[in-house]
Amino acid sequence: MISTRVATSGSVVSKRASAQLLKSFSGLTSANTVGLRSSFVLVHQYQPIASGRRNFSNSSNVNIKEFFPKRDTEKVRRTEAAWPHPVYTPEQMNSVVVAHRETKTMSDKVALIAVKVLRYGLDLATGYKHDKAVALNKKDPAAATQKYAMNEQKYMIRNVFLESVAGVPGMVAGMIRHLHSMRRMKRDNGWIETLLEESFNERMHLLTFLKMSEPGPFMRLMVLGAQGVWFNALFFAYLVSPRTVHRFVGYLEEEAVITYTRQIADIDAGRLPKWENLEAPEIAIDYWKMPEGHRSMRDLLLYIRADESKHREVNHTLGNLKQKEDPNPYKSEYKDLTKPHPTKGLEHLRPVGWEREEII
Amino acid sequence: MISTRVATSGSVVSKRASAQLLKSFSGLTSANTVGLRSSFVLVHQYQPIASGRRNFSNSSNVNIKEFFPKRDTEKVRRTEAAWPHPVYTPEQMNSVVVAHRETKTMSDKVALIAVKVLRYGLDLATGYKHDKAVALNKKDPAAATQKYAMNEQKYMIRNVFLESVAGVPGMVAGMIRHLHSMRRMKRDNGWIETLLEESFNERMHLLTFLKMSEPGPFMRLMVLGAQGVWFNALFFAYLVSPRTVHRFVGYLEEEAVITYTRQIADIDAGRLPKWENLEAPEIAIDYWKMPEGHRSMRDLLLYIRADESKHREVNHTLGNLKQKEDPNPYKSEYKDLTKPHPTKGLEHLRPVGWEREEII
Ligand SMILES: [Fe+2]
Ligand SMILES: [Fe+2]
Ligand SMILES: [Fe+2]
Ligand SMILES: [Fe+2]
Repeated sequence: MISTRVATSGSVVSKRASAQLLKSFSGLTSANTVGLRSSFVLVHQYQPIASGRRNFSNSSNVNIKEFFPKRDTEKVRRTEAAWPHPVYTPEQMNSVVVAHRETKTMSDKVALIAVKVLRYGLDLATGYKHDKAVALNKKDPAAATQKYAMNEQKYMIRNVFLESVAGVPGMVAGMIRHLHSMRRMKRDNGWIETLLEESFNERMHLLTFLKMSEPGPFMRLMVLGAQGVWFNALFFAYLVSPRTVHRFVGYLEEEAVITYTRQIADIDAGRLPKWENLEAPEIAIDYWKMPEGHRSMRDLLLYIRADESKHREVNHTLGNLKQKEDPNPYKSEYKDLTKPHPTKGLEHLRPVGWEREEII
Repeated sequence: MISTRVATSGSVVSKRASAQLLKSFSGLTSANTVGLRSSFVLVHQYQPIASGRRNFSNSSNVNIKEFFPKRDTEKVRRTEAAWPHPVYTPEQMNSVVVAHRETKTMSDKVALIAVKVLRYGLDLATGYKHDKAVALNKKDPAAATQKYAMNEQKYMIRNVFLESVAGVPGMVAGMIRHLHSMRRMKRDNGWIETLLEESFNERMHLLTFLKMSEPGPFMRLMVLGAQGVWFNALFFAYLVSPRTVHRFVGYLEEEAVITYTRQIADIDAGRLPKWENLEAPEIAIDYWKMPEGHRSMRDLLLYIRADESKHREVNHTLGNLKQKEDPNPYKSEYKDLTKPHPTKGLEHLRPVGWEREEII
């Protein structure tokens, strides 16, 4: 199936269309690096309407209904978001920084290596070669764009793919803890909700990006295949070592903060002209309660990056706790309210997570 | 494993310890009906402390920590419930009635038959023969108690078992819809939250009953095995026909309302003396916000029955909708607020669900 699909897009790809989709995905696009722009049309159709002030959505009208079935019906006006988003201030969002938690245990190292491997695969797959691109850009901008620069399309592909898999770990962890609580007849201590809310938040990221672009059939196939492999891998990993999975997600989110920070920097440097006047879609304005005058693509990326930094903190923190007995620090009331403690918002950011002694 | 377990409790059981746990479970207790009270000790240890006013919990102190790890730690006071429960008034709870939705389609019939089969198996398993018991009780109360009457222990076994499986369908449905939304890149229209909240509510039922009793090792093994079979069955059923699964849960909840209605009637008729002065545990008082003076076991059963009647309505309603495009009526804002419409509370009860035309 995959190799057929690839053949029609005219690229040169190895024939082993194995079941391991991620592998063949990277195989595909390393061949693509030579400059097969045409195949991207199949992967992702991206048509931003940069000018129109009133155009929140950039999806073509033909397919928009498919992604966003009308929510208002004869009798229903609208349907609420499951978890209302906490309000972030611009200062808080600007204070989000790239960060890395040093590995301390063997389990940390396993988690970090897993993330590095995935990151390498995805970079190949999406033609993401930031450093080289920046270097060449200084010498010869035209060649750089031609060869490896990330453009709006490539970033969109990357973001859609990342967000479509990002919603899985929270759901898997929440489900396993729910079943575990009933099976073992033990209280869960409040973890489930935070995990499910994280997966909901990631799904909102995905739906937001989908409002602005439209994946082609190949991309959709990738997402479908990746979810199957990814869900099962996480399911078994969480059964074996939930602590390692939380650390792993913490490291993944470190990468997510990096990638969104770069996109913001690229906008500021004028490297993503199509995004400069792009407005956030309505779904995003509603969800993040984006104030008027702060509804650009750049603002949207600031909100999403802040969410990712929160997931980074939450998962690093959960990875520091005793999985079976500690209460969820993000759903707890603290005895001493004068000291900073974990919250749902961005008040007391701890990029590398809270240590167990500080909060339990 | 099962047959060994059973042998040690001294009961006469067929030797086919098949993988199909529910089957062997019913096999066990149909042999038990003769009067093997001793084996129930192994199944369930039940020690209510009916007198003590200040004893919210009836679990023996030895094991209570296992089920309810201390939530207050050095720094944490308490951890909130994931979904705050809507407040029910006594009048609303008393207006809950046993009801049945007539089957209309083939899918409805399949769902109803599945429930009847499960109900038959569970009745055998828990020695639940209500009608016969009531009849014999009139003639010879001693013989009735000896032979089939439901007593507090048997009801507790039944409730714990039922609640431990009741939390599965909502989680399965919510998870599948979440993954589906990301994989197919379509909005979910608000269904997921209601489904997850239902599974949370069922888990609170389970934890509440566990606060008042203590399953023996055999019971725990049953719950463990049942969850494995049950989860997988629901997972595949929901992939094949979500509509049938919602109808099935609707019918299951009809049965749940019946069983809790009987327990309340049995208390009123003086057939469950140990429950007459029993108080609801603290976890229940917190969760349902039970007002002072309304915290008896009977009140607790009223709250739980009202929850089940809500699940009955929600699932019958969801079973009437177009699964992929309709918004969740329980998370929707209605255009015409003067007409009754679905809500989270008990305001406009519709035991057999809302029809699609009424609300979409
Ligand atoms: Fe995300
Ligand atoms: Fe994230
Ligand atoms: Fe229940
Ligand atoms: Fe229920």
